[in-house]
Amino acid sequence: VPISAALLVVGNEVLSAKCADENGPHAIRRLRGLGVRLRTLAVLSDRMDDIVEAVDRERRRVTWVITSGGIGPTHDDVTVKAVARALSRPLVRNEALAGVVRDHHRERLGEDAPEAALRMADLPEGARLVGDPKFPTIAVENLFVLPGVPRFFRWQLEQIAPILAGTPLSLGALYLTLGENPIADVLEQVAARNPDVEIGSYPRFDDADHRVRVTVEGEDAGRVRAVLDALRAALPGGAVAREDEP
Amino acid sequence: VPISAALLVVGNEVLSAKCADENGPHAIRRLRGLGVRLRTLAVLSDRMDDIVEAVDRERRRVTWVITSGGIGPTHDDVTVKAVARALSRPLVRNEALAGVVRDHHRERLGEDAPEAALRMADLPEGARLVGDPKFPTIAVENLFVLPGVPRFFRWQLEQIAPILAGTPLSLGALYLTLGENPIADVLEQVAARNPDVEIGSYPRFDDADHRVRVTVEGEDAGRVRAVLDALRAALPGGAVAREDEP
Repeated sequence: VPISAALLVVGNEVLSAKCADENGPHAIRRLRGLGVRLRTLAVLSDRMDDIVEAVDRERRRVTWVITSGGIGPTHDDVTVKAVARALSRPLVRNEALAGVVRDHHRERLGEDAPEAALRMADLPEGARLVGDPKFPTIAVENLFVLPGVPRFFRWQLEQIAPILAGTPLSLGALYLTLGENPIADVLEQVAARNPDVEIGSYPRFDDADHRVRVTVEGEDAGRVRAVLDALRAALPGGAVAREDEP
Repeated sequence: VPISAALLVVGNEVLSAKCADENGPHAIRRLRGLGVRLRTLAVLSDRMDDIVEAVDRERRRVTWVITSGGIGPTHDDVTVKAVARALSRPLVRNEALAGVVRDHHRERLGEDAPEAALRMADLPEGARLVGDPKFPTIAVENLFVLPGVPRFFRWQLEQIAPILAGTPLSLGALYLTLGENPIADVLEQVAARNPDVEIGSYPRFDDADHRVRVTVEGEDAGRVRAVLDALRAALPGGAVAREDEP
């Protein structure tokens, strides 16, 4: 079974156009490289109910759920609470994380950690800390709770990358001089006969050298090549302008 | 009640890193300008069940659902079918849209429309055509079904903009020299006392002139100004480096 993931970006600031989402685009590329199939990417507001609902839905249908954002000490940081509620686990102070927060404040800021900072160590019961011990990632069941600040998100994603890893996909493509209408039936038939690969069709309407890019993706490069051959054979002569080998 | 929206981008090609989503970022900015509150943006694969589930969920909790992509003639274009299923409406050929497709093929390509193209006129029963009569947008209940090609998506979004329009928000911000920990309690109290505005807190960890940007948003600029004043009064002296007026 392919390793799959859902990414939940908790980002009022993204939805209200205050800033662009950097974590979604980064994670898409990185998960692709790791061979993890991203099934959905949702940007959510910081409404507790919406986050609870999304976490509960996605955790049941993918291998890994990754959240981004909403884990600071202020009133709009509700992700950890929402995860606890979605998993029906009480929030309890995680002493290991509280220790990390205390050390950070003592070493970096030369002060005792305030209660607001320590509240960030209140985690769903049974949560684990993974990755860098100095800047750990919160994990519970099949969820990873990552920070929203892009630099920190990217860092923690690298830390958990070895845990996530799946099987990378091979991608091949045919660039066609025909539009989608005359090829629709061929694609449908070849797709139905080859359920182990995924066939996509992407039209364009500019003056490029092709009108449709047909992609074939799968874990086995040999199978991708075979399906590209099957498509080429089934399409009208001269339809293929060029090709990307898997 | 504020006008709200959900944007569902049907985009296997986005999730698999074949191309970046342009429609989400564009729609975020445009909806903001129109005064429509975007409650969620989800990028979905072209799995029928996922789209059905998302359409059915979102249509119940926002004013408008906008979909992007998956409406061409090929096997991976399943959005219209998914919308029909989510609304429990049968697919029926929409004769007005079939006429548009026929005219397009006759005028632009000098040929009869093939059946694959006419299948794009099979719509959920009761669907309406809105916007430009030559390039209409499919609407049914509170859903708008837009194309995924960015140029066409943007065009159709402009066509339906007058239908969507809500009340634009005023935005003000305080740029603070303090981090989030010492301000968390103040923000929570002021937010609880002013539920008609939305208060956000966005930390940064670089060498900018501020460590946290606190935003206040609401329909009434006078109320935004009043809440900015209340925050300034409740924060320690010297905490505000600068300010954006609403």
